Amino acid sequence: MKRPFRARVALVGLGPIGIEVGKALVGRPNVELLGAADPAPDKAGKSIAEVLGSSGEGPYVDSTAAELYSRSARERGKSDVVVLCTGSRLDSVAPQIEQAIEAGLHVVSTCEELSFPELRHSALGRRIDERARARGVAVLGTGVNPGLVMDRLALSAAAACVRVERVKVTRIVDAAKRRGPLRAKVGAGLTREQFAAGVSARKLGHVGLSESAAMLALGLGLAIEEITETIEPVIAERETDGVPAGHVLGLHQIALVQGGDDPRVILDLTMAVGVSDPSDTIEISGDPPVHLRVSGGFHGDRATVGCVVNAIPFVVDAPAGLHTVVTLPLFGLLPQEA
Amino acid sequence: MKRPFRARVALVGLGPIGIEVGKALVGRPNVELLGAADPAPDKAGKSIAEVLGSSGEGPYVDSTAAELYSRSARERGKSDVVVLCTGSRLDSVAPQIEQAIEAGLHVVSTCEELSFPELRHSALGRRIDERARARGVAVLGTGVNPGLVMDRLALSAAAACVRVERVKVTRIVDAAKRRGPLRAKVGAGLTREQFAAGVSARKLGHVGLSESAAMLALGLGLAIEEITETIEPVIAERETDGVPAGHVLGLHQIALVQGGDDPRVILDLTMAVGVSDPSDTIEISGDPPVHLRVSGGFHGDRATVGCVVNAIPFVVDAPAGLHTVVTLPLFGLLPQEA
Repeated sequence: MKRPFRARVALVGLGPIGIEVGKALVGRPNVELLGAADPAPDKAGKSIAEVLGSSGEGPYVDSTAAELYSRSARERGKSDVVVLCTGSRLDSVAPQIEQAIEAGLHVVSTCEELSFPELRHSALGRRIDERARARGVAVLGTGVNPGLVMDRLALSAAAACVRVERVKVTRIVDAAKRRGPLRAKVGAGLTREQFAAGVSARKLGHVGLSESAAMLALGLGLAIEEITETIEPVIAERETDGVPAGHVLGLHQIALVQGGDDPRVILDLTMAVGVSDPSDTIEISGDPPVHLRVSGGFHGDRATVGCVVNAIPFVVDAPAGLHTVVTLPLFGLLPQEA
Repeated sequence: MKRPFRARVALVGLGPIGIEVGKALVGRPNVELLGAADPAPDKAGKSIAEVLGSSGEGPYVDSTAAELYSRSARERGKSDVVVLCTGSRLDSVAPQIEQAIEAGLHVVSTCEELSFPELRHSALGRRIDERARARGVAVLGTGVNPGLVMDRLALSAAAACVRVERVKVTRIVDAAKRRGPLRAKVGAGLTREQFAAGVSARKLGHVGLSESAAMLALGLGLAIEEITETIEPVIAERETDGVPAGHVLGLHQIALVQGGDDPRVILDLTMAVGVSDPSDTIEISGDPPVHLRVSGGFHGDRATVGCVVNAIPFVVDAPAGLHTVVTLPLFGLLPQEA
């Protein structure tokens, strides 16, 4: 990263993560908040400071990104970035990404499928890459998962290995300690039937697990024959944290990359209320073997905010185009002190 | 990393690590061994296969790098790399690096001080960078430490943090399980006086701890006011693994980066015979806090070989100049399967 660093940041999407990103940016040296946009009636038109719960006056929240971008368009600079926290699925977020690109902003987004579009949306990914190159901006999808714990960090550890046979990453998240949307996303409190219906409707489940598996497998040098993903409910044996016995505590989701007859990459994610011993574990069968454990696990929301804000300086400095967290050297923090 | 990948690799320095790097490269898809050089009478003139303990005929070990480089000079390609495993101190290794640069080879070296020359040898580092740029080759110093566990991996984990107050990395290595040179390097079996004399003469101690501390502090965005480094002996309370009571089991070395009144980066390294519970621990005081532990620790020799061979494809693809392990996205392994 070149220093001194400068960026002007627009926030689009003021859900729980977007708000925390905003709070994390207020007061940073050399970061200027360009503005924010969110159509929600309880946000649009209010002062950003009020929505972020910070002090000061500051500009108002626009109801659309177009208004926000047009306001700064005449003085567009090479270090203007939008942090886009609006959705998980690339087909719905892609128009917002392209709008930001056309407006001349670099993009950092929590959109899980943007972490590795090649997997499910290769044509969309190529289009985003081409438009970003044409406009001279960089685009990155990241959070902690996908974005760090099951892909970037696992590859960092595997870089110590002369040979790798298999990598298994296990993430156990206590959904009871997390914000409301996570409880809903993992299906806590539902019946088995409601859970199954929610999975079918793609309303339940963690988005991005196969994207992490693909980045990890490619980094390991494996030819990806097939990635399979399964989601099962975790069922309460007794009443737990408000969930009646026999109902759903959360989900157990697995992404598997086969290589020949053997599983080579196994990403095993449990997000549920009532789990004991939340943690992240990376087990590498190889030469040398590596067993790495993060006690308590990375805090999903806080670490996603960290991954997003820390990516900003690197995205500003990156070559134009679509990047992933394993094609940029994201080894550093957004400066926190002047 | 672009695929398909190709590299031709010259090995200079056939000590324990150089030999293991050679063994790790034999049989890799798209890697061709250009040759090897080492002046030692038990190596120069023998077949490389014999020295590596592998099968086949192959070329002979040259006694000098100059001979080795001149043999391939006429067909020099853009993917020719030398792996240089000859020493820890940059003032003695720099002429070898410059010789390789002039010969048109990219350089990956285990020279610990090359991991971050800016710290102790900024003029040398600038010269290497300039010459590498002029010749169109890339240069990188890496191993597991410096190169991964106390710098790159710690920054990978810290990238999840919105704010960081302090990072402490603790590495405990069981020198009894390692090759002879490590026992000697940590002073196992010496008296206190011999240990003190060895430290003064810079014959004892781990080289590269302050380099890791500097990379870590810069990545965290800290202004480095001062890095202090201390080395103390670990003394045997009772006879341990052949070391008499009162003699030295190994060393305890600390690098400390102050920021204001507080220690912000603490790298705490114990390498001794008879340690219980070898491990690597990364403790980040921040938001969120992160506690990461590698049970058993990264195996020093095997992981150094892994870090070196896995860096080869990235160095071949890197922009010309001097790099560090935190300025390149080293998220991947040297392809192990065709």
